Parts: sequence; structure tokens; C-alpha cells
Amino acid sequence: MSLEKLSANKSFGGWHKQYRHYSQSLNCDMRFAIYLPPQASNGAKVAVLYWLSGLTCSDENFMQKAGAQRIAAELGVAIVAADTSPRGEDVANDEGYDLGQGAGFYVNATQAPWNRHYRMYDYIVKELPDLIEATFPVSNKRAISGHSMGGHGALTIAMLNPERYRSMSAFSPIANPVNCPWGVKAFTAYLGEDKTAWLKHDASELMSKASKFVPALIDQGQGDDFLVEQLKPETLTAAAKQSGYPITLNLQQGYDHSYYFIASFIESHLRFHATHLNK
Amino acid sequence: MSLEKLSANKSFGGWHKQYRHYSQSLNCDMRFAIYLPPQASNGAKVAVLYWLSGLTCSDENFMQKAGAQRIAAELGVAIVAADTSPRGEDVANDEGYDLGQGAGFYVNATQAPWNRHYRMYDYIVKELPDLIEATFPVSNKRAISGHSMGGHGALTIAMLNPERYRSMSAFSPIANPVNCPWGVKAFTAYLGEDKTAWLKHDASELMSKASKFVPALIDQGQGDDFLVEQLKPETLTAAAKQSGYPITLNLQQGYDHSYYFIASFIESHLRFHATHLNK
Repeated sequence: MSLEKLSANKSFGGWHKQYRHYSQSLNCDMRFAIYLPPQASNGAKVAVLYWLSGLTCSDENFMQKAGAQRIAAELGVAIVAADTSPRGEDVANDEGYDLGQGAGFYVNATQAPWNRHYRMYDYIVKELPDLIEATFPVSNKRAISGHSMGGHGALTIAMLNPERYRSMSAFSPIANPVNCPWGVKAFTAYLGEDKTAWLKHDASELMSKASKFVPALIDQGQGDDFLVEQLKPETLTAAAKQSGYPITLNLQQGYDHSYYFIASFIESHLRFHATHLNK
Repeated sequence: MSLEKLSANKSFGGWHKQYRHYSQSLNCDMRFAIYLPPQASNGAKVAVLYWLSGLTCSDENFMQKAGAQRIAAELGVAIVAADTSPRGEDVANDEGYDLGQGAGFYVNATQAPWNRHYRMYDYIVKELPDLIEATFPVSNKRAISGHSMGGHGALTIAMLNPERYRSMSAFSPIANPVNCPWGVKAFTAYLGEDKTAWLKHDASELMSKASKFVPALIDQGQGDDFLVEQLKPETLTAAAKQSGYPITLNLQQGYDHSYYFIASFIESHLRFHATHLNK
């Protein structure tokens, strides 16, 4: 596994760095960013929050706009921001912003032409953490969070792998993708017409049937343009009630789908994760 | 004066908004952004920090990347982020990133073709604050800050108008533009070959001869790629010594020229300004 460092910026006493590497899961070069807090320079192994971004994003949006480094530096937690799909000229794509490059939906595609590269589930669950834990001064204490498509990814990946994550959180997650236009379009393309294959990647479906509980925090803006048609947080509330899943879901008056919303509440998410990571 | 609202995002209990308006000084449409803290919704008039960005930036870079809203919301200070030059197809431009659109250098151009639109000094000193104070629930208590070219702008504008600003600060300012490549190129184009016209817009020159002192805070990264050739903070230190100007200039080990640096230290700048604004 060779890693190429692309950039490094000192930030709140720690370091933000971007790397490129060849991904076996995705069969292409990938970029990721890591924020290493000051504590990671002192020989200690720090816990890691994995961040999954939303449609059209790369590793850069969260690192540049969320203002998370200040709190990560205080808490001694590293943050890894992944890209949102395989990338490159040889990688299948679509004209829409909500399918193909920038829109991997954190699943393993089974349908052509997507199945050659689009294995974001394997990349996020196994390949990327293996690489991070083999390379940087971090422990295998993991938390996972994300926004919108990445909120869907964070919740589903944590619920499918409860032994691998101490906590999960989401901003404005696509809570019930099997019943919204973004999810139906992406799952039809990546997973095929048979909807039984979709249910494994639906946060509300997983939550309604869960028996192992990963501590969960969700924030959703009530001024979000995608709230009613795409995000449907009420399905998560109903699912949690069905299984007795202990979730905290905050509806925030007036906030929209942007990073201004994420920045306003990222501190509470980081403190929530740190509580579970540092147990 | 007609204002067109372009966007609004709730942020830390307040509102980030972008507007377009026709500028008389610049003879073209301009965009700016304002952050109104929660205190501005309660009938109170809040003080304003004016932010001037660096080369290639618009009103968006600072608002999206600096993480300033959290502290502005706590302190009850509004922030106005201006654009860095006149804009539009009819506005003179240059192929370089360091002249023309995105590179107004906060001066009034006297040379063709620039003198038709490039009057950023008048726009920042008078027209924009007049518009802001006539439109929003803000007071005429003003502070000014900026980065790189905008740090040069903030320091020179405050020192030329000490009665208009309670405090000034800068990140990585171009401290002595008459003696660095960025400054010489821009001042030659905008102000002509006669260097006596340049001195009015050189922070070190103004500081060395000042008799009225605006409280001043400056941060400079020691890992900044532009430090030696373009920024020259040592000229400010020498100038301050000459006139007895009380400045605080912090050299920050390892930090570069990016917004990761600004974000790391913006809190101390906002607290510094609030101390003087709330006197």
C-alpha cells in the first residue's frame, strides 16, 4: 500500500493532510483527508471519527467548512474524511449529480457498469480503516458520522457493523432511501430492480429490526429544502420506537441543508462521539 | 440603493446572508455577505467587523472557511465580508491572478483602463458601511480585519481613517507592498509609475509616520510560502518601533497562508475586536 501525501496544513496545533492511494476495493486511485490532533504527535494513539460526505462532495468540504478541527484538537480525536465515490476517467458516471461519481451511496454495486468500481461499502468499512490504522498513530476505536447521503452511509454502516463502531451520528441523513427519489434512483442503478437487496442499506429498515444498539445522535434542520421529499427523519423515529433503539434526534428550527448547519452543531456531535470513544 | 438578497442560511442562531447591489463607487454590481448574530434579531444595534479577503477570493471564502460565526454569535458582533474587486464582463481584467478582478488591492485606481471601475478604497471606507448601516440593525462601531491583500487593505484603511475604526487586525498581511512583487505589479498598474502615490497605501510607511493609533493585532504563520518574498512582517515591526505604534504581532510556528491558519486564530481576533467595539 503506497500513500502519496498531497498537502499538509497546520490547524489548531495539529495537522490536516490529504493523501492519494490506490484502492483495491474501488479499483482506482482515491484521495482522503485526515486531521491529526496535537495529541497524535506525542506518541499516543488517538481514536478516529470517520466522516462521510453528501452528494457532489469530496474529502474537502467537511475539512474546509465544518470547523471541526478546533474541537477535535481539544478532545484528542482524529478525523478521516473520505471521498464519496470512486473517481477517474475510466470510472462509470452519470449526467445527474445524484448518481455516479460523487454519489457512491456507500454500497457495493452489483449491476453493470457500476460493479467494476463502485464498492464504497467495502472501502469505508474495511480498506480505509485498515490503511489508516496501519499508517497513522491512531487506535481501532472508531466512530462514524456523515451528512445527507453520508448520514445514510454512517447510520447503515454502523448498524451493519455494530462491533466496529463505538458511536454513530448524522446530519440530515437520507433516512429511508428505499422510499425517496435519491435512494430509488441510486439503488436501482447500483443494486438492481429487486428491492429486497435495497433493504440492507436502509437506515430505517435496519433500525426497526436492530437488537444491538450503537449509540446514536441525529440532527436535522427544519428549514431543509430536502426534508419532506428526500430525508424523512420521521421514519427513523418510528423505526427506533419499533425496536426500542435509543436515538437522540434533534429537529433544529430554521436550519437548512448546508454546511452552515453542520458547523453550528458539529461541536455537540464531536463531544458525543468522544464520550463513547474515550470509555 | 436597491439590495437583492441572494441567499440566507441560519448559522449559530444568527443568519448568514448574501446580497447584490449596484455600487456607485465601482460602477458595477457587487456582492457582499453579512453575518448577523442572534443579538441583531432582538432590536439591538450590533457593532460590525468588516472583513477584507485576499487575492482570488470573493465574499464566500471567509464566511465558509474561517469558522467565525460561532464567536460572533457569542460576542454579538456582525461580520461583513466584501468582494475583492469590481466584477463583470465590462470590468477591466488581467490574465494574472494578482491583478484585475479578484485583486483590487483596496485602492482607487488613477490609471486607465483601471480607473473606470477600480475604486475599492472608496467602496470599503464609505459606500459599503453607509449601505450596511442604513439597511441592517447595526451601529457605526466598526472594526476591520483581513487576510494577505486584505490584511494590507485592513491596516492601511484603518490607519488612513483612525476616527472610523475602533480596532484593526490582519492575518498574513502584505506589510510593505511598495517593496514586494505583488504590490509593485498592482500599484504600477492602478496608481502609475510615480512611487510617491504608492506610499499612502503601504502599511509599513503609514505605521512609521502615525501619530493616532488604532489598536492593532497581527498574526503571521512562519510556515507561509509567501513570508519572505511578499509579506515581510519585519517591516511592520520596524515601522511600529519608529513611531511607537502599539501593535501585537504574533509569529505562529508551522502555520501556512491558508484558511486553516485563519480558522485556528480567528477567535483571538474577534475577542480582540469585541473588547474595543464594546467599550
